[in-house]
Amino acid sequence: MKGITILINCNDSKGIIASVTNFIAQQGGNIVYIDQHVDRVDNMFFMRLECEFSKSTFAVQAFQDVFSEVIGDKFEMNWHLYDSDVKPKMAIFVSKYEHCLYDILSRYSANELEVDIPLIISNHPDLEHIAQSFNIPYYYIKVTKETKEAAEDIQLNLLKEFKVNFIVLARYMQIVSSKLIEEYPNHIINIHHSFLPAFPGAKPYHSAYKRGVKIIGATSHYVTEDLDEGPIIEQDITRVSHTHTIKDFILKGRDLEKIVLSRALKLHTKRKVLVFNNKTVVFN
Amino acid sequence: MKGITILINCNDSKGIIASVTNFIAQQGGNIVYIDQHVDRVDNMFFMRLECEFSKSTFAVQAFQDVFSEVIGDKFEMNWHLYDSDVKPKMAIFVSKYEHCLYDILSRYSANELEVDIPLIISNHPDLEHIAQSFNIPYYYIKVTKETKEAAEDIQLNLLKEFKVNFIVLARYMQIVSSKLIEEYPNHIINIHHSFLPAFPGAKPYHSAYKRGVKIIGATSHYVTEDLDEGPIIEQDITRVSHTHTIKDFILKGRDLEKIVLSRALKLHTKRKVLVFNNKTVVFN
Amino acid sequence: MKGITILINCNDSKGIIASVTNFIAQQGGNIVYIDQHVDRVDNMFFMRLECEFSKSTFAVQAFQDVFSEVIGDKFEMNWHLYDSDVKPKMAIFVSKYEHCLYDILSRYSANELEVDIPLIISNHPDLEHIAQSFNIPYYYIKVTKETKEAAEDIQLNLLKEFKVNFIVLARYMQIVSSKLIEEYPNHIINIHHSFLPAFPGAKPYHSAYKRGVKIIGATSHYVTEDLDEGPIIEQDITRVSHTHTIKDFILKGRDLEKIVLSRALKLHTKRKVLVFNNKTVVFN
Amino acid sequence: MKGITILINCNDSKGIIASVTNFIAQQGGNIVYIDQHVDRVDNMFFMRLECEFSKSTFAVQAFQDVFSEVIGDKFEMNWHLYDSDVKPKMAIFVSKYEHCLYDILSRYSANELEVDIPLIISNHPDLEHIAQSFNIPYYYIKVTKETKEAAEDIQLNLLKEFKVNFIVLARYMQIVSSKLIEEYPNHIINIHHSFLPAFPGAKPYHSAYKRGVKIIGATSHYVTEDLDEGPIIEQDITRVSHTHTIKDFILKGRDLEKIVLSRALKLHTKRKVLVFNNKTVVFN
Repeated sequence: MKGITILINCNDSKGIIASVTNFIAQQGGNIVYIDQHVDRVDNMFFMRLECEFSKSTFAVQAFQDVFSEVIGDKFEMNWHLYDSDVKPKMAIFVSKYEHCLYDILSRYSANELEVDIPLIISNHPDLEHIAQSFNIPYYYIKVTKETKEAAEDIQLNLLKEFKVNFIVLARYMQIVSSKLIEEYPNHIINIHHSFLPAFPGAKPYHSAYKRGVKIIGATSHYVTEDLDEGPIIEQDITRVSHTHTIKDFILKGRDLEKIVLSRALKLHTKRKVLVFNNKTVVFN
Repeated sequence: MKGITILINCNDSKGIIASVTNFIAQQGGNIVYIDQHVDRVDNMFFMRLECEFSKSTFAVQAFQDVFSEVIGDKFEMNWHLYDSDVKPKMAIFVSKYEHCLYDILSRYSANELEVDIPLIISNHPDLEHIAQSFNIPYYYIKVTKETKEAAEDIQLNLLKEFKVNFIVLARYMQIVSSKLIEEYPNHIINIHHSFLPAFPGAKPYHSAYKRGVKIIGATSHYVTEDLDEGPIIEQDITRVSHTHTIKDFILKGRDLEKIVLSRALKLHTKRKVLVFNNKTVVFN
Repeated sequence: MKGITILINCNDSKGIIASVTNFIAQQGGNIVYIDQHVDRVDNMFFMRLECEFSKSTFAVQAFQDVFSEVIGDKFEMNWHLYDSDVKPKMAIFVSKYEHCLYDILSRYSANELEVDIPLIISNHPDLEHIAQSFNIPYYYIKVTKETKEAAEDIQLNLLKEFKVNFIVLARYMQIVSSKLIEEYPNHIINIHHSFLPAFPGAKPYHSAYKRGVKIIGATSHYVTEDLDEGPIIEQDITRVSHTHTIKDFILKGRDLEKIVLSRALKLHTKRKVLVFNNKTVVFN
Repeated sequence: MKGITILINCNDSKGIIASVTNFIAQQGGNIVYIDQHVDRVDNMFFMRLECEFSKSTFAVQAFQDVFSEVIGDKFEMNWHLYDSDVKPKMAIFVSKYEHCLYDILSRYSANELEVDIPLIISNHPDLEHIAQSFNIPYYYIKVTKETKEAAEDIQLNLLKEFKVNFIVLARYMQIVSSKLIEEYPNHIINIHHSFLPAFPGAKPYHSAYKRGVKIIGATSHYVTEDLDEGPIIEQDITRVSHTHTIKDFILKGRDLEKIVLSRALKLHTKRKVLVFNNKTVVFN
C-alpha cells in the first residue's frame, strides 16, 4: 500500500469533512487516521489525514491535481501532501553545547527519528568529533559580524545542495537571518532554554534563579523574525528549589531541552504540526 | 441548531469514515468535531462525532432509524446517540469521606459539570449536612452484611425513580454488587486511591509508604465485577519522599483523588470515553 | 512536651549550627528536626529548628531572652520563635470567585489546615452564604475608588480586633494598599492565576491562549509593593493544547489555583518559609 | 579547605545533633550543610553532614578514630565518611540497549557526573564501539547458563582490579547473582523499565499496554536478592493514551529510563542516599 498524509487548513464552512472523506473514498483510498480541529475564535478549520492507496494504481501527481481542482480550490485551502515513504531531510545547526546534539544523534542512530540527516553545520569546530563518530558530514562555517552574510550564503548553498527540508537549531548560539527564515518558513525548529514567554533572551537560567521561581522550563518553537516569539510546538518543566544553584538550574535545564526538542522534532517529522496565526495546532 | 453526539465502535474496515460523514451531510447535518481511533492490535474502529442539525427539520427518532439501517447494520456497529441539550443525571454514592463530595458539589454549583444531580446515596448519615447546603436530597441507606441485598434494591429503586444515567462512587466504602453493575455497565465511575495496578485493595497509602515509593497516584475507572480491574479512565500522580508520613500520603492522595475523579466525570459527561476489551479510548 | 519552632537567618559564619544546637541541648531541649540552608551567592545562613522541652520547666519568655543574648546578638540573627500549641489566625479576603474559598474552608473543616479562621472579608456580598455554612463571620466591606482608604481602615481594625496573624487573598480582586502590606510584611499570601513571571496582570489566561502556550500555571507569592513581583512560595502547572478554549484554560487554572494556594498556606502555617532578598527558602 | 561528607544512621535519641555538631566544631571543622531525618515509625535517626576543615591540620584517619570513639560508639551509629576530593569509581554493566549507556557517557564527558568510569562490562559485544568513542575499556564477558558462575568470577576480578566502588546496570539484561550483591550491598543501581511495584518482571510495557494505563513510569533502585524489590531511589512517569502503541510506550519509556537512572546516579555519587529497612532516605 501507498501511504500519504494530507495537512489542510482553511476557513471553516459546512461540509468540509464530508467532502474530503468522500473524495478520498472515491479515489479508492482508505482513511487510516483523521484528526481535525476547528478554531471557533478565528473560524479556522484544520485537518490531518493519513490515507492508504493501492500502490499499483495510485499516482501522486494526478491525485494532487484532482484534489486541488475538486476540493482545494472550492474551500480555498492551504494544503500539503506528504509521501509516507519519503523521510524528510533535516540539517542540524550547533555551536558549542553538545547535549542536544548527542541526544538527537543517539535517537537517530537508534532509528527513533524518521529523518535523514545529511549534514551538521556549526559556527565552531568543537563538536566535529561527535559528527564523525556518527558518520555525518560536519561543516564548520565561522560567523563574525563581518562574515555573517557571506556565511549564511554558504549555509544556504549547502542546504540546497543537500535538499534539506527543515532545520533544527540544537542550541545554535546565533540569531538566524531573515533570508534563512524566508527560505524555511515554519521549518526552522529552535529549543529555547526557558519557559517562554517568561525569561526570553540569552540568560534565562540566571534570570529564573534571581526571581526565585520554583519551576523552570524549556520551549521548542518555530523560528520567526520576532526573536523568541515564534509558534510554540512543545514545552515542559521541572521543579527547582532554593537548594539549587544556577549551575543546577543549567544542568536540569539541559535535560529538559533535550526532551522538549526531541518531542518537537518527532511531531514535526510526523507532520503533526500546523501553524496559523503564530500558534500551532498539534495533533498528538 | 440541534446538537448531537454519536459514539461508534466496530470492527475496522475500509470506508467507514467516508460512509458516516457522507451520511451526516446527506441528512443535512454539519460535523462540528470528529475524533477517531483505530486499534491495530484488535482491528477495532472507534469514532466520536459532534454534529449540528437545523432544529426545525431534525427528528432524533427518525435519524436514529435511518442511521441504524444505512450505517449501523452495514458495519455491525455499537453506537449511541446523545442529545446535547439533555444533561445526564448522576447519582453520587458516598460514605464518610467528604473531600470528593465537596469537590464535586462545588464544581456542580459553579456550573463546571454538565450534569444534573438528583440525589446522593450513602451508607452513613454523616455527610447529610453537606448535601443540604447544596439542596440535594440525601438518602441514608444503611448497609450491613444482612441488609446488603435489600439495601441495594432500595438503591436501585431510587436510581430508577430519579432516572439516573450514571453513578459516581465518591469514596463509597462498599463493594458494589453484580446487580448494580449489570444495570449500569461502564456507567459506574470509581476513584481508587492508588496508582493502579500498584497497590490494589483497601489500604494503598499504607502499602505505598511501606514500599518506600517516591510517587503516589490515584486512578479513576469504571466498575466491573473484577475489583480494581475495570477500564481506567484517568490517572495522576504526586511526588512523595521519606519526609512524608502515612498521614501526609493520605492528604496528598486526597487532592489527587479529587482532581482525577473530577476529570473522569467531565470526560464521561462529555461522552468522550469509549470502552472496549476492558480498556478505554479517551478522546480528549 | 512543649514544642517550639525557631526560624533563623543571618550572615553565614563558622560555627552557627554547633552554637545553636549546643545551646538547645544546654537548655534541656531536644532537637526534633533541623533544616538548614546556606545561600553561597549572598553568603546568607537559614535555619529552621523544631525542638521539644519539658513542659514543667520551660518558659518561653525566659528562653527567648537567653537565646537573644547568647546566640541571636552574637550572630546578628533575624529570628522568630513559634509556640507549636498556638495556631496562627488567618483572615481570608475574597471577592466573587468561590473556588479557592470552598477549597480552603473544606480543608479547614477537615482539620487539614492548622489555623484558626476568625473572619472572612470581602468587597462583595456574594459569597456570604458559603461563610455561613462554615459558621465563619463574613464582613462585607464595599471598596470603591472614593472609599478605598476608609475601607482599608475598617479592614485593619477588624484584623487587629481578631488578632489576625496573616492574610490569604483567595482571588481577592483588589490591589492591596501599602498600609496593609506594611502591617503584614511577608504575611499576605496571594494566588496569582498565571505562571509568574509570564503573564502578570489581570487576564493571564487570555494572554496565554493568545500566545499559544502548551502549559499554564499558577503562582502563590507574598504580596509586596511591586505588583506580582513578591517572593514566590509555590508554583504548579498543567498542560493545555489547541483544543482548549479560554474557558477551558480558566477551569483548568482554577484547579491549579486551589492546589497551589493550599500548598502555600500549609507551608506558611507550618513555619517552613523564610524570605530573603525577595526570594523564599522553603523547607519542604 | 578539606571537604568531607559524613552519613549517619542510628536509633533516635536525645542530643545526637548537638553532640555531632559540637564535635565537628571542637575538631575545628565548619559544617557547610546538614540534612537530617527522623523516622518516627521505626525510631531511626538519619543525618548527612558536609564539613570543611583546614587542609594543613586535618587528618582523615585520626578524625575517624576520634569520631568513632566519642560519637559513633556512644550512639551505636552506622556511619561512613567520604573525602570530597575522591571521586567514586563506577562500573557500567550493559547488554544491547544503548540509550542509557549513551546518556550516562555523554553526561560523563560533559563533567556532569562526579565519577570515574574505569570500565564497561557487557554480556554482548554490540556496544563496544560506543565505549571506544568515549575511550573507556569494554569487557565483553559472555554469560550463558553454563558459564554464568565463571563469568561472574571474571566480573568480580575486574571490579576488584579497577577498585570499583559501585555498579550501574544500564539495562543489563541478566539477573545479578548473590555473590555480586553481597560484595556490593546497596551499591548496585538498576533501572527498571516500569513504575514499580506495578508491572515487575521483564515485559512491563506490554503489560501496561494491555491494562490500558494512562501513565507509565520507570524506577531506579538498589539491587537486592529479591528481584525488583530493592530500595527505590527515584521514579518518574510520563502520560500515555490509547493512541500509543507498545512501540510508543517503549520509546517514551526509554526517555524516562535515561532521566531516572541519571538522577539516581547523581544522588548516589553525591552521597545523598541512605538505606534502611529496604527503603531510602534521599536528601535532595
